[in-house]
Amino acid sequence: MEMAAIAALKRFSSEKMQKINLFETPRMFCDIYCLEPGQAQKPHAHAGADKVYFVVEGVGEFSVGEERRILNAGWAILAPADVDHGVRNTSSDRLTVLVFMAPNPNIP
Amino acid sequence: MEMAAIAALKRFSSEKMQKINLFETPRMFCDIYCLEPGQAQKPHAHAGADKVYFVVEGVGEFSVGEERRILNAGWAILAPADVDHGVRNTSSDRLTVLVFMAPNPNIP
Repeated sequence: MEMAAIAALKRFSSEKMQKINLFETPRMFCDIYCLEPGQAQKPHAHAGADKVYFVVEGVGEFSVGEERRILNAGWAILAPADVDHGVRNTSSDRLTVLVFMAPNPNIP
Repeated sequence: MEMAAIAALKRFSSEKMQKINLFETPRMFCDIYCLEPGQAQKPHAHAGADKVYFVVEGVGEFSVGEERRILNAGWAILAPADVDHGVRNTSSDRLTVLVFMAPNPNIP
């Protein structure tokens, strides 16, 4: 059984946000993003692929299109295909986000 | 911005496991499953669609194929396309699971 414990896999770096893959199939991938205070994934879009963010711990400022919201653990956010989206850790604590994307843009 | 707070949306019923949709697109859906002690989603498979379970709170027994594991909050489990999978709340507390599936089998 493929399974993953976020507490064991999360990893932070003072250099930049860390992305750690949990699962990948031809149809989707599941990552965790680990952001130290001040770190960000700058807004970007994926052609034809939807992303869901789920805040596991900490507080992040999420952007989707022109909107921005500060959300904490237990919130899920949809970034639809082709719409700019990003996340920034505007808090003073670490931020861990579960990320799903479908389809998998890494697989042609 | 489409967003959802699990704490506000979760809902339990003594009759059966509750499924609450958070987001749906042609490419994927994201639900929460809410299981009272003893409730289960019996093993089943989805042709050509992968599922990821993420335990938000509580403890569940997850099955994928012939394997069974008891996992608590912070664990993610991959149920690959075409493989039988299910979840049972074998604990005495409520179980809330985030579920992601791709592609969306509800959309032809």
